[in-house]
Amino acid sequence: MNAQPQSLLLPDPLPLDGGAELARVEVAYETYGTLADDGSNAILLCHALTGDQHVASVHPVTGKPGWWERMVGPGKPIDTDRFHVICPNVIGSCMGSTGPASEASDGRPYAMRFPVITIRDMVRAHVALLDVLGIDRLHAVVGGSMGGMQALSLAANWPERTERVLVIASTSRHSAQNIGFHELGRQAIMADPRWQDGDYYGGEAPDSGLSVARMAAHITYLSEEALTAKFGRNLQDRPDGTKGAKSFGFDADFQVESYLRYQGSGFTRRFDANSYLYITRAMDYFDLAEEHGGRLADAFAGTTARFCLVSFDSDWLYPTSESRHVVHALNAAGAAVSFVELSAPHGHDSFLLDVPALDRVVQGFLA
Amino acid sequence: MNAQPQSLLLPDPLPLDGGAELARVEVAYETYGTLADDGSNAILLCHALTGDQHVASVHPVTGKPGWWERMVGPGKPIDTDRFHVICPNVIGSCMGSTGPASEASDGRPYAMRFPVITIRDMVRAHVALLDVLGIDRLHAVVGGSMGGMQALSLAANWPERTERVLVIASTSRHSAQNIGFHELGRQAIMADPRWQDGDYYGGEAPDSGLSVARMAAHITYLSEEALTAKFGRNLQDRPDGTKGAKSFGFDADFQVESYLRYQGSGFTRRFDANSYLYITRAMDYFDLAEEHGGRLADAFAGTTARFCLVSFDSDWLYPTSESRHVVHALNAAGAAVSFVELSAPHGHDSFLLDVPALDRVVQGFLA
Repeated sequence: MNAQPQSLLLPDPLPLDGGAELARVEVAYETYGTLADDGSNAILLCHALTGDQHVASVHPVTGKPGWWERMVGPGKPIDTDRFHVICPNVIGSCMGSTGPASEASDGRPYAMRFPVITIRDMVRAHVALLDVLGIDRLHAVVGGSMGGMQALSLAANWPERTERVLVIASTSRHSAQNIGFHELGRQAIMADPRWQDGDYYGGEAPDSGLSVARMAAHITYLSEEALTAKFGRNLQDRPDGTKGAKSFGFDADFQVESYLRYQGSGFTRRFDANSYLYITRAMDYFDLAEEHGGRLADAFAGTTARFCLVSFDSDWLYPTSESRHVVHALNAAGAAVSFVELSAPHGHDSFLLDVPALDRVVQGFLA
Repeated sequence: MNAQPQSLLLPDPLPLDGGAELARVEVAYETYGTLADDGSNAILLCHALTGDQHVASVHPVTGKPGWWERMVGPGKPIDTDRFHVICPNVIGSCMGSTGPASEASDGRPYAMRFPVITIRDMVRAHVALLDVLGIDRLHAVVGGSMGGMQALSLAANWPERTERVLVIASTSRHSAQNIGFHELGRQAIMADPRWQDGDYYGGEAPDSGLSVARMAAHITYLSEEALTAKFGRNLQDRPDGTKGAKSFGFDADFQVESYLRYQGSGFTRRFDANSYLYITRAMDYFDLAEEHGGRLADAFAGTTARFCLVSFDSDWLYPTSESRHVVHALNAAGAAVSFVELSAPHGHDSFLLDVPALDRVVQGFLA
């Protein structure tokens, strides 16, 4: 659909949780729909780890449709006939917002000189963007997965900025297992000799390592049931035409192997390995309770926003118990909150896929 | 304890499922306890993916105790005062049995010229070993994880060779998710430029890739609950003495990161990367039903052995449903089978850890 791809330079340096300041912060974003004269219909949409601002527009690198075309558009659950949707690329990423591949003040890419950022830092950049755009108070902030972390962080740290908070398939903190999977991805990237301590710009990128990292992550995005339903133990047809036979070699015999290799290598065309390091680090650092003295309910003290949390029964990355944990804290803080666990077979990726019940929840909550 | 480390050359070439024959097959093994005059007290113990024959003896590389010291020994559940325990290193491995690091007929290591093997090929070598040792019929075959696959394969393909079959935390086939995790490990190894298409012997080994593969596997061996209980989001103390603080860098801040890195790098000292490729491939190829016309019950037709299957409620690698699937097939085949799901917090690795209920089941079944 007709997106407005835009980018702007934040007027002030961005203070970061790590103590540094980031100067000359560019934020790339897309908008959909028209902002009402009173500014009351803005929705901030926050993307996930490897997402970007191309919510419902063709991706400039892959040529594929936007990642939430099914959800965002005229007459869709996030109805752009009614709402003005703003989706910024998070800082640390690689689709136009300032990140490790961006030029530092010396004209060379930051690479690993880029400061380690947090989810709150990403949201701080979003809020600075909203300031520039003149949007004081959002109709809603919406996000799935890491997008949900941003929505929670905005609700906790800038409670006056939004009326509604919609958090899908997310968590208020990364578990040891979550951290473990990310760490293995980072080690795969850093083990790639092309990584060169992050100074690979202008040369060959550490695609092998990034591809392995993506394969690992991708397994966690799907349920065991979804993988079984989609691939099971089905074999690929062999290059010589033999139908579904084992090669007794190390080619991709199983369809699931071929699929994961494809997911891994395809990802390297559109994503920067250093961005993967920084964003996974931000997610691993995320612990909303810790930011607020150790008690999650205190993160939401005095909030007047309405919350909606959605989990999926097949999501083992951020299982329902994580959403319930947030709901209990919101209850303890006296916040208005609704919560639903949806049944969907796809695992964590359900939030991106065809789950009509999710459409209804999103549409109803934003109405 | 007092193991008898031994090795022998099989008298005949070993026919393989892939169609080739493996000549001059060496089988390294350890024995514990004394074989009865009538040969009736032998137990074949089958090790897991990265296990070896050092069940209850000090590992020659790491200097650590054997991997099942708690289970095997005088007066222990597998009582070496009563039983003669034989544990062979599987072919394809790297602890003495013929594998990719072994010399081929041209005097150079096989490397990737080693044929792709199956679980049944491993068991075929075990049976050839038993033939040489003069053991016609085992008191029991016992194994956990990949060891359980070998036990099932022996029961299905050489049903006359054992009276009892004890299968712990295992499966009759690898799922798409199981294959996915293995494939990502293989890709990590093959992406390491030191791998050199497998021809790294005598030079630097692909330790970085192997380490990443091990990290991935290790996450699957533990339950989310176990990782949370053991590490949670606990931070490491910093090298400068700061107690548990974030570095805002890419050091191992979280204890779980440090643990996984240690598991990964420690593994490379004792294991050969090509062996990891071959053994994971054998596990991925494992599908006992497929070997027997597609119906698992047919794999056990006419068996007279008694079976015992044990699963752990926190094992998400080979969950209880996989054991139950085998039990249903054994029921359909009219076999004598007992089955228990044990409650243990550790995940798949429970079979190696302190689970007293497992000790009682093992002891009772072998009595």
